[in-house]
Amino acid sequence: MRKVNQDRIEETIRMKGPLSRPDMARETGLSLVTVNRSVEALLSEDKIKKAGLEDSNNSGRRPMLFQINDKLYNYLFAYIYLDRCRIQLSDHRGGTVMQDDLAIGEYVNGGFVDILMDRFEQVIEKYKEAPYRGIFIGVPGVVHEGVIESIPLVPELEGLNLRDRLSKHFNLDVHLENDVNLATFGYYHEHDPDAWGTRTFLFLNHGVRMGTRIRGRIYGGSSSFSGEIGAILFPCDTNTSYEERIYRLSQKAKTDAKARDAMVNSITELLIIILSTVNPVEIVLHHDLLDSTDLIAMREALAERVGERHAPRLKLFTGAFQDIGMKGMVQVALSLHQDESLAITRML
Amino acid sequence: MRKVNQDRIEETIRMKGPLSRPDMARETGLSLVTVNRSVEALLSEDKIKKAGLEDSNNSGRRPMLFQINDKLYNYLFAYIYLDRCRIQLSDHRGGTVMQDDLAIGEYVNGGFVDILMDRFEQVIEKYKEAPYRGIFIGVPGVVHEGVIESIPLVPELEGLNLRDRLSKHFNLDVHLENDVNLATFGYYHEHDPDAWGTRTFLFLNHGVRMGTRIRGRIYGGSSSFSGEIGAILFPCDTNTSYEERIYRLSQKAKTDAKARDAMVNSITELLIIILSTVNPVEIVLHHDLLDSTDLIAMREALAERVGERHAPRLKLFTGAFQDIGMKGMVQVALSLHQDESLAITRML
Repeated sequence: MRKVNQDRIEETIRMKGPLSRPDMARETGLSLVTVNRSVEALLSEDKIKKAGLEDSNNSGRRPMLFQINDKLYNYLFAYIYLDRCRIQLSDHRGGTVMQDDLAIGEYVNGGFVDILMDRFEQVIEKYKEAPYRGIFIGVPGVVHEGVIESIPLVPELEGLNLRDRLSKHFNLDVHLENDVNLATFGYYHEHDPDAWGTRTFLFLNHGVRMGTRIRGRIYGGSSSFSGEIGAILFPCDTNTSYEERIYRLSQKAKTDAKARDAMVNSITELLIIILSTVNPVEIVLHHDLLDSTDLIAMREALAERVGERHAPRLKLFTGAFQDIGMKGMVQVALSLHQDESLAITRML
Repeated sequence: MRKVNQDRIEETIRMKGPLSRPDMARETGLSLVTVNRSVEALLSEDKIKKAGLEDSNNSGRRPMLFQINDKLYNYLFAYIYLDRCRIQLSDHRGGTVMQDDLAIGEYVNGGFVDILMDRFEQVIEKYKEAPYRGIFIGVPGVVHEGVIESIPLVPELEGLNLRDRLSKHFNLDVHLENDVNLATFGYYHEHDPDAWGTRTFLFLNHGVRMGTRIRGRIYGGSSSFSGEIGAILFPCDTNTSYEERIYRLSQKAKTDAKARDAMVNSITELLIIILSTVNPVEIVLHHDLLDSTDLIAMREALAERVGERHAPRLKLFTGAFQDIGMKGMVQVALSLHQDESLAITRML
């Protein structure tokens, strides 16, 4: 109970502060004894700070006001996309302090992790006024308990526990997350932050991966494999996965109308799979070759197969994938600052 | 805030009652003013009742105690399974008051709804001591806003808003739900009620449907279509769904070893689909022809395809499906009594 009340007091100060202790009791309905105890605890944990005495017209004793202790923090980010890795430093409000790109194509035979750590060290050395709250890495692979898998773009990272490696070296919390999960979080933070129901972001550009957002959080599944729908086999072609099939057809689609139709049909079948499992109210597709005409045709095909009321809205995302990925990562970092479970939930 | 505090007081009385008002203030940390206001509200809503004066050794005023008002209620249930419909009456604790089965095979050309309503009227007439809290119907179809779809077993119900029809006639709350969702809830209520992570129940016996349990609740999707994985096409066989394919192969599997292998392979591919979307930590399969040897082979195939750490536990459910379905429905009814969102969540 004590923790519950303390959290409520903290949240009330965050929303309505600066507040005096009697204000807090009034706002929450908690007793003054409880309020006093919670304020003491929050002060000792550095979560709130004194904000001066209340203005007063009468001559009585003026109560002390309290507000959230918005300390200055830095967050360090790296987001891998194709042959580049974007490095970013953000402050405790998510503002960008610095950003640059590492070309990683030349490290295909190793050396990328060393370069990354060097770059991090330079940034930390240069920007050292505020303490670092953590390092966040977005990768085009499956992340499970700090270990990266299925990351053909950077073979050096395959099977590596990058989390332990970096956190030991920098003595900071390190968070790894799948790139599409982060992009899904970033997309909805920008386009529809208050959406509560299920929404899916389907990345189709250089691989097949979906991110699922339920109740404002990214759904991580039990082992971070939820979303790896590219791994499903397209059964007529023995041993061909949806990922391989859609990639192969996309390569031909620019010049071959039949391949383009087959590509659109394969994507439609993937949408049916998403629909009959996750059943989102909206699916956002990211694929350079698709246009709004394709979307209309796909939605008609879905409505015919499963009925109009079960066919989700379809949208295209045509922006820069790495931008929403990085934005999502910054938001995940800021939400971790408040509550570990706000952004991405694992369901073990 | 007022509702939050009132819910906390109610929950505290439920867990630790009978309690006096000072007890409640101590247990929750809320002020006596807040406690008094909440107790008044809870009394006026019939949610708590007076439970006599506290025993006391000293000669001071003895405070009044309060406890949860466990009123007597009846719930009426119908669960359709193949050619039968089980009718059940349960009390407010979930105890079975009466149960019988209607044969519905003879109503394939209509008349079932009338027979069901007659039966409900007889039951309500016979057991009328306690008020009825609601009617709950489990159906082998997709339920969306009271309307039933995809219910070949009872064509009369296709497209019917059974909820409105029954609630108008009986003037009671009527809840419709998919049979596999209810069975999933019932299975886990019995076998692993405290499980928090994602678990899937895969019904394969006379159709293909999955139920997904996340954080102790059934995941209903946006339009109740989540779980309809039988609708996915098995692409080599144009226009053959997984449901048709598995049903057809199951028919042959008893005498044809090749058909049996193809059946097991098709189910394994469905498991990959579940794994790469919902990513549960456990999948429970219900299919009369599968045995534990099949499960071991399937799990090995999964581990080879996606890696050992992503392959979920596989279990067989060999009990009576309608029993766990009915149990799940009773639990859904009891949880609705407390909080609408505890059992099944829709994600619109």
